Amino acid sequence: MDWGDRQMKKEKLSYVGKSVKRKDALLKVEGQSRYADDYVFEGMLYAAAVRSPKPRIKILGISGAKAEKIPGYVTLVTCKDIQGVKQWPIVLDDYPFLCEKESKFEGETVALVVAETLRAARQAAKLVRIKYKELPFLTDPLKSLEKKSLKIYGSDNVFSRFIIKKGDAKAAMKKADITVKDEFSTNYQVHGYLETQCAIAVPEPGNLMTVHSTTQCPFYVHDAVAAVLGIGYNKVKIIQTVTGGGFGGKEDVPALVASHAAICAVKTNRPVKLVYDRKEDFISMSKRHPSWSSVSYGAKKNGKITSCIIKYVLDGGAYSTLSPIVLWRGAVHAAGPYKIENILIEAYAVATNKVPSGAFRGFGQPQIVFAQESLIDDLSAKLNIDPMDLRLKNVLVPGAKTSTGQKIEASCGLKETLLAVRKKSDWNKKIKNKKSLGEKVRGMGVSAVYYGVGLGAKGKFLDRAGAYVNVFRDASVNVNVGNTEMGQGALTVLSQIAAETLNAPYKNIRVQEVDTSKVSDSGPTVASRTTLMSGNAIIEASAPLRNRIFSMAKSMLLKKGSKSSGAMTAFQGMFSMGGKKVSFNEVVAECWAKRLKMGEQGWHIAPHTTFDDKNGQGNVYSVYSYNANIAEVEVDKETGVIKPIKMTCAYDVGKIVNPALAEGQAEGGILQGMSWALYENLVYKNGKMLNPNFTDYVLANTNDKPEYDIIFVEKFYDRGPYKAKGMGEVPLIGMAGAIGNAVKNACGIRIKKVPLLPEDVWSRLKNKNKEKVK
Amino acid sequence: MDWGDRQMKKEKLSYVGKSVKRKDALLKVEGQSRYADDYVFEGMLYAAAVRSPKPRIKILGISGAKAEKIPGYVTLVTCKDIQGVKQWPIVLDDYPFLCEKESKFEGETVALVVAETLRAARQAAKLVRIKYKELPFLTDPLKSLEKKSLKIYGSDNVFSRFIIKKGDAKAAMKKADITVKDEFSTNYQVHGYLETQCAIAVPEPGNLMTVHSTTQCPFYVHDAVAAVLGIGYNKVKIIQTVTGGGFGGKEDVPALVASHAAICAVKTNRPVKLVYDRKEDFISMSKRHPSWSSVSYGAKKNGKITSCIIKYVLDGGAYSTLSPIVLWRGAVHAAGPYKIENILIEAYAVATNKVPSGAFRGFGQPQIVFAQESLIDDLSAKLNIDPMDLRLKNVLVPGAKTSTGQKIEASCGLKETLLAVRKKSDWNKKIKNKKSLGEKVRGMGVSAVYYGVGLGAKGKFLDRAGAYVNVFRDASVNVNVGNTEMGQGALTVLSQIAAETLNAPYKNIRVQEVDTSKVSDSGPTVASRTTLMSGNAIIEASAPLRNRIFSMAKSMLLKKGSKSSGAMTAFQGMFSMGGKKVSFNEVVAECWAKRLKMGEQGWHIAPHTTFDDKNGQGNVYSVYSYNANIAEVEVDKETGVIKPIKMTCAYDVGKIVNPALAEGQAEGGILQGMSWALYENLVYKNGKMLNPNFTDYVLANTNDKPEYDIIFVEKFYDRGPYKAKGMGEVPLIGMAGAIGNAVKNACGIRIKKVPLLPEDVWSRLKNKNKEKVK
Repeated sequence: MDWGDRQMKKEKLSYVGKSVKRKDALLKVEGQSRYADDYVFEGMLYAAAVRSPKPRIKILGISGAKAEKIPGYVTLVTCKDIQGVKQWPIVLDDYPFLCEKESKFEGETVALVVAETLRAARQAAKLVRIKYKELPFLTDPLKSLEKKSLKIYGSDNVFSRFIIKKGDAKAAMKKADITVKDEFSTNYQVHGYLETQCAIAVPEPGNLMTVHSTTQCPFYVHDAVAAVLGIGYNKVKIIQTVTGGGFGGKEDVPALVASHAAICAVKTNRPVKLVYDRKEDFISMSKRHPSWSSVSYGAKKNGKITSCIIKYVLDGGAYSTLSPIVLWRGAVHAAGPYKIENILIEAYAVATNKVPSGAFRGFGQPQIVFAQESLIDDLSAKLNIDPMDLRLKNVLVPGAKTSTGQKIEASCGLKETLLAVRKKSDWNKKIKNKKSLGEKVRGMGVSAVYYGVGLGAKGKFLDRAGAYVNVFRDASVNVNVGNTEMGQGALTVLSQIAAETLNAPYKNIRVQEVDTSKVSDSGPTVASRTTLMSGNAIIEASAPLRNRIFSMAKSMLLKKGSKSSGAMTAFQGMFSMGGKKVSFNEVVAECWAKRLKMGEQGWHIAPHTTFDDKNGQGNVYSVYSYNANIAEVEVDKETGVIKPIKMTCAYDVGKIVNPALAEGQAEGGILQGMSWALYENLVYKNGKMLNPNFTDYVLANTNDKPEYDIIFVEKFYDRGPYKAKGMGEVPLIGMAGAIGNAVKNACGIRIKKVPLLPEDVWSRLKNKNKEKVK
Repeated sequence: MDWGDRQMKKEKLSYVGKSVKRKDALLKVEGQSRYADDYVFEGMLYAAAVRSPKPRIKILGISGAKAEKIPGYVTLVTCKDIQGVKQWPIVLDDYPFLCEKESKFEGETVALVVAETLRAARQAAKLVRIKYKELPFLTDPLKSLEKKSLKIYGSDNVFSRFIIKKGDAKAAMKKADITVKDEFSTNYQVHGYLETQCAIAVPEPGNLMTVHSTTQCPFYVHDAVAAVLGIGYNKVKIIQTVTGGGFGGKEDVPALVASHAAICAVKTNRPVKLVYDRKEDFISMSKRHPSWSSVSYGAKKNGKITSCIIKYVLDGGAYSTLSPIVLWRGAVHAAGPYKIENILIEAYAVATNKVPSGAFRGFGQPQIVFAQESLIDDLSAKLNIDPMDLRLKNVLVPGAKTSTGQKIEASCGLKETLLAVRKKSDWNKKIKNKKSLGEKVRGMGVSAVYYGVGLGAKGKFLDRAGAYVNVFRDASVNVNVGNTEMGQGALTVLSQIAAETLNAPYKNIRVQEVDTSKVSDSGPTVASRTTLMSGNAIIEASAPLRNRIFSMAKSMLLKKGSKSSGAMTAFQGMFSMGGKKVSFNEVVAECWAKRLKMGEQGWHIAPHTTFDDKNGQGNVYSVYSYNANIAEVEVDKETGVIKPIKMTCAYDVGKIVNPALAEGQAEGGILQGMSWALYENLVYKNGKMLNPNFTDYVLANTNDKPEYDIIFVEKFYDRGPYKAKGMGEVPLIGMAGAIGNAVKNACGIRIKKVPLLPEDVWSRLKNKNKEKVK
């Protein structure tokens, strides 16, 4: 079967491309959906973590003597209770499931208390005494990188480093007519999912373990639980519960939470629930990496960018978890979506004694895109070229090569997205006629983004996905996939793909939350890969079913007296040919009567990708999505407050399967990107997190949302399901850059730090005025 | 792929044919296995049935007024609460889930009470008042058949009738040199499973229903629950709990129990458990059909049987359930495993106002085999031919035709089984030298049996089975099938087949209890079809996995420097070639690194079968198993007590996958057949069951077991998994016939009624002596 067949071209699509009703809408609106903490099992116990009180300690002993006195106390669980491996198996395997001799950040789980009630567990956990000696610690990633610094990881505190080297960037920089160079930094971002971390581990006879987990990545949870318990994968089952938001924060860390619950469940031989309160979720769960970067571009007078040199440092925190992969994505995209012949990128993920950073929507890109897109605007200013024009001159187009030397083969609509936002935002007119309303000045800023869809070369061993499609005798259809719904609409989009492929009525389809016992390891639900990977897996599973169903439909229509000459049409659950009709339900009944195989497992493997570790060259992703943003902001010069007015954003994410949901993804991503750019400011002092709560840590809410103008430029991707690419992370990535550029455009100052805080804007404006006065 | 390839011939088998350790042995021995009643769900309620007190009533009203006063009472559930279909969909769909206007047997579920505790539910159920008017009723199937009888089903009280007509049996009977004719009857048999019926229905948001059920046939439960709730199949999930015995008693009826629990769960929106006590299990659950038959054979003087005429009546009870199918199996096998050219069989399943009869190990065969094999011995007596010789002269051999005109194509070892038991039991010597010890006389009897494996032509639409085989990254393997473990060892035998096919270590395999959401509808677990159907489905699912694994192994061995000349050997989880070795675990890891598809759904369809409803001719089963039994008994002439001494039994059930388990199947079947033949005597009086308990209803126990001599004649079946056929029901079928013949041989009297009660033997012996005296 060649790829074209798999696509199963239809003249007229039944469901794909339509804003069909969201499958889980009613359940969520009515409050019927059951999140992890809603589950209660007979005989269930509760666990609570005993956490390290200091950034770095040597553990001398753990005493439960006082905790034991709490009524309902059951047991204290320490690393000695682990029967399997002691270190969490994820990339570099440096993170202990439970601390043994040392704890490396404030809030780290040192032990667990299990009790009959949640209240008792938490009370008792507070009474567990960790005897410790404080150790010296590191909090600044740049200091951590220094040769003479304290060493807290390996010989150099570096979790991971990458080099991207193309042409001779240093020589080209010297030869450039114009150069710009600057340093930028970004702070943490908290995922802010509504539902905190939670897992319930249910032991079963025969050494079996089922874990109900709020997670993006049930197969990561599966890996971790099998490892920590030291039992076979076929004895562990992970069931994803309805997940109240992820954004990367439920990528890696739920494996840790689930493993803790599982250790407790094995020790007590009873179900154990571990649910986090908001504070412990803040202090112990992953965050977007803070970053520091130094970026320089060189260009010819005509605006042709000739060189880019970047040093990019991510603050990994105490353990590496996903830092190597986050860093890699950031590094390969760091130079921006431009045709540049000479590139040198050095990227580092370094250790500090703070909460481990991990996955977050955009995965290492937003930080460097903020820096790099800010500097592109500074370059355009120096060149005296409209920033939009500079981008249009340099952006990737089909046939161009990326910073890793990858030739863009197909489906590249970046230029079109730029043209679209320029037109829709009235850029040309507005950029020249800036509004000023007293102290309030308005400005516009642009950013251009490309985004490698899927795991790419560094995650290629995991870049495959399964699906199980089972057509029941009553023509209802069950679909299991390995990627998760976490609010983004996967259940709906994947239902549309299944319905389209089988020509089943949309209402007949049920796509379920992930159960690791039903499909093979499908990798994580990250990197905007769900529609692409699970969608294709569904098509692969459905292909033989479709053949059987369509053949049966044809033979039934012929039996009914249809003229065989006409081609059969399949549309929205009906088959028609030569004036006769037969329904999907009738056809399926006949397939069953003929005992045809109506259940199939699909398996989709992402195309081959490459990455050369020495020079960082290769075809690193199989396809890219593209996006252009224009932010309009209003800056209050008196207060420094930046108010986003309007976001005009265009996306080339291939075919749009569900426009309403895609718009929702865009709106959410824009708001979350804007929130990071403007508001979110986690404060650490001496290794202690000072504002681990939603009172002191400010996020954008719906009151803050700007006007949206969302445009889709559908550049079809032939290997995507119904020609779709990936969408989820794209809208966030370029927001800080566009906003920073709009602020510069509005009031002339360049803020080089995310979040762009009012106090910084205000003080810079004051200084600027002072300079003017001088 | 042709069938030969699917068999994946190996020179040396790793696991098939070996008595490997039973997978569930330890869990069961240690009492760890969780049966349905061991499950407790948070917030679970308990249901109890309100049962009809009379054989036939008109329901005038149901009042819960008194029941409501029981503390913990929650609700009364009647047929008005059913949102889906009102009649249980099974063959003829005449059985209402809950009675509306009429109840047709004592013990029928009229309504259900739900309460907070089991005790409260049962107390309250007793207080529900059914207002009724008694209606006239029928208890005798022969009277039910009479033209002028009361009509309780349709126009003639006949659920189902079949005719098998070959040649001209009446004419041939007239021409025969010798004829014999007699009438026989058999009583009920109670399944006597240790675990009574139980189901727990757990409602979930989104109109979903999961049912945990002790069942042989999760897909029957699935059909019924979806129907009664009126929801799609993809919203219903049935999970089989560890099942404490079935024997046919958990074929159809668990669907009823589960449906009742599901109605209650929907009404209360809480989990509901319905568990039966032993008495209600007796009075309401299915039984082996009582039967009446008239059999005649005609033969030539030389012993060649030329004609067989049979009338066979099964007492179906109040509703048809599986009676049509039970009757059909009985009818097509009725003439016995003999080459007879003229056959006329008329078979009827008729309605009476008693508990509905249903599936029971042997499924309509044991009753008629008792009659038919008794009469074959009477024929041999009349012919003065040794009964063994008469059988050997007439039995089916390859190339011969059955009563339905089916030519036996392959794998037919009936003659060999007869020769084997003759030799092993020392028949020739013992039959002539009968022992007599005072009042105790010994005798030997033989019976010959054939058994169509699987569902045959009348169940062919259901005769398919699925399997899901998933090889995890750590080389542990999960297998899901659609057929159930119910004590017979399916988990073990199917694990052996999976291990053999994949060349995986046996310990790596986990076959799970059935979950209807993991494999397609695989039909019922009946008709000794599990090894054959699920075994083949596992082979089909494993075939592509095996190809990938074996290719990978070969390429790894070549890389290791193996000489490519030698053929690769696969044995017990190791691959070897040219002096190099690589393990299954290593190969699987490499397959995963290469992202190969390691999960597959298999689907096996039984070969085509036919049945002509007019004359009852056709290739009704794809293959047959065969069996010969010699029973040695001792009859106490003073008391009439029959003591079985030794059973010498030989089986041709194809390749034996696990000899220890096959012996266990044989021993269990022999004992259960013997128990039915000698002890089990359910007493009905005026439509009321008088002994619904294990005190007054006597079953054989291990103290009663005779000496066993079990022989396997392995006639390979090319289309069976590793050449196996089916075993489960075979050992029971011929026991009553052999025992009856042994009793005749011992003391000269022919008992024509099962059970062969001491009082009947005693009174017949007394009469015989009286006759002698006269």
